[in-house]
Amino acid sequence: MHAQQMISTHPHVQGRTNDVLIRCIEACYDCSQACTSCADACLAEDMVRQMAQCIRTCLDCADVCVTTGQISTRRTGSNERLIASMLQTCEEACRLCADECERHADAMEHCRICGEACRRCEHACQEARQTFARTVQ
Amino acid sequence: MHAQQMISTHPHVQGRTNDVLIRCIEACYDCSQACTSCADACLAEDMVRQMAQCIRTCLDCADVCVTTGQISTRRTGSNERLIASMLQTCEEACRLCADECERHADAMEHCRICGEACRRCEHACQEARQTFARTVQ
Amino acid sequence: MHAQQMISTHPHVQGRTNDVLIRCIEACYDCSQACTSCADACLAEDMVRQMAQCIRTCLDCADVCVTTGQISTRRTGSNERLIASMLQTCEEACRLCADECERHADAMEHCRICGEACRRCEHACQEARQTFARTVQ
Amino acid sequence: MHAQQMISTHPHVQGRTNDVLIRCIEACYDCSQACTSCADACLAEDMVRQMAQCIRTCLDCADVCVTTGQISTRRTGSNERLIASMLQTCEEACRLCADECERHADAMEHCRICGEACRRCEHACQEARQTFARTVQ
Repeated sequence: MHAQQMISTHPHVQGRTNDVLIRCIEACYDCSQACTSCADACLAEDMVRQMAQCIRTCLDCADVCVTTGQISTRRTGSNERLIASMLQTCEEACRLCADECERHADAMEHCRICGEACRRCEHACQEARQTFARTVQ
Repeated sequence: MHAQQMISTHPHVQGRTNDVLIRCIEACYDCSQACTSCADACLAEDMVRQMAQCIRTCLDCADVCVTTGQISTRRTGSNERLIASMLQTCEEACRLCADECERHADAMEHCRICGEACRRCEHACQEARQTFARTVQ
Repeated sequence: MHAQQMISTHPHVQGRTNDVLIRCIEACYDCSQACTSCADACLAEDMVRQMAQCIRTCLDCADVCVTTGQISTRRTGSNERLIASMLQTCEEACRLCADECERHADAMEHCRICGEACRRCEHACQEARQTFARTVQ
Repeated sequence: MHAQQMISTHPHVQGRTNDVLIRCIEACYDCSQACTSCADACLAEDMVRQMAQCIRTCLDCADVCVTTGQISTRRTGSNERLIASMLQTCEEACRLCADECERHADAMEHCRICGEACRRCEHACQEARQTFARTVQ
């Protein structure tokens, strides 16, 4: 992704990027795609009735992650409190979705991979939120 | 909107709707459209340089609101903790955006109307979150 | 929704609204919520395996409709060719989703209502696209 | 991104992936982030009044690209006609946004990079649409 390049050329950033937040943004877009894909793959499984909860958490996580990526991208003016709150919600969405996907990881490869993407995004949100209080950009 | 009709016919709801949450869902979609429109109108103002913060908060609020509407619509399985967290983030987004829009309400009619939509959605999220702990659907 | 009020106060519009397009914007947000809700309700049905295609078309239609509502809301500068193309894609998404939902309308009330929302949005997109060539705003 | 891994493990795909479409999905998420970032950076420029059209096309392109990525990810059931239509709309959004960004590429590095992301996504959509008629997945 071009997130690092794009944000570093913002007039108010000028190279002083919060790299932890940028890795989080990339993890959000990646996790959103993975969750959209996992919900779709679960829906095609023979045992779809057992996958309803997983589809639910994946659809929710996909929605939350892409919005977190969008909100966290902006640097004009300020909205730090909202980013911090959104990162917390996204961490929760990813944690709940990873917990659910990991239950099916042995039986379904898409759940194993999606669980990894969620866990990585969960940690990225957590780390971004921690540095967020100290770093402006 | 069809939110009331749609959710009341969900197999697990069967008419036992959380009407406060449904009003919140409708307020979210409405507020998202209003914020998209206000960011766009601010961008066309002669004094656009003074409107950059308002455009930022409107774009962020538009993204957060539509996701809150989507997440809060689902009733299959459960994800109550995520809905509660998202409602809190959305309440914050609406409050911050209303605060900013209200500063320009006398000079710009679109900011006055958008501020009202944000304030209504802020309160709807607050009320929905309060009933949420008690009501399942 | 506040779409009419918001767009009519845009500096470049100043009351000269394309009311057919505004009705289409409102139909798009409404249809997006209905489709999100119908996909979720189908997922909770005992016969979910027979509903996989309906869930797919509903999820796709929900995504397309909300983006069409967002794109069609903006009036600063111009992007008429994109709006026209997006309205055509949205008309297709709604038509395909209405066709699928209507197949289940007798058995499932949520499909009947969602089918109506899709059909209304399909026609709203069609009408908006027709007036679009002639009207600027 | 995990798009290749995720889609190749879908029960109906089982490794028979349309790699051109998968590259397009990744380009869509990347371009959406770049356009969100470029709209935001343009808004922070001193000459923001001259950037209004670029902000408009970037916001529109960001919305269209993420939806195209979502729609194109799903493989359960079928909705090929919608994907083809969406890819065409996305190609148009990217072309119009690249044209606008390239006009400012010499003066603003974020527009140069965003123009490249848009052009790459435009071509990825074009190629995906061409293979789409022949390949099912």
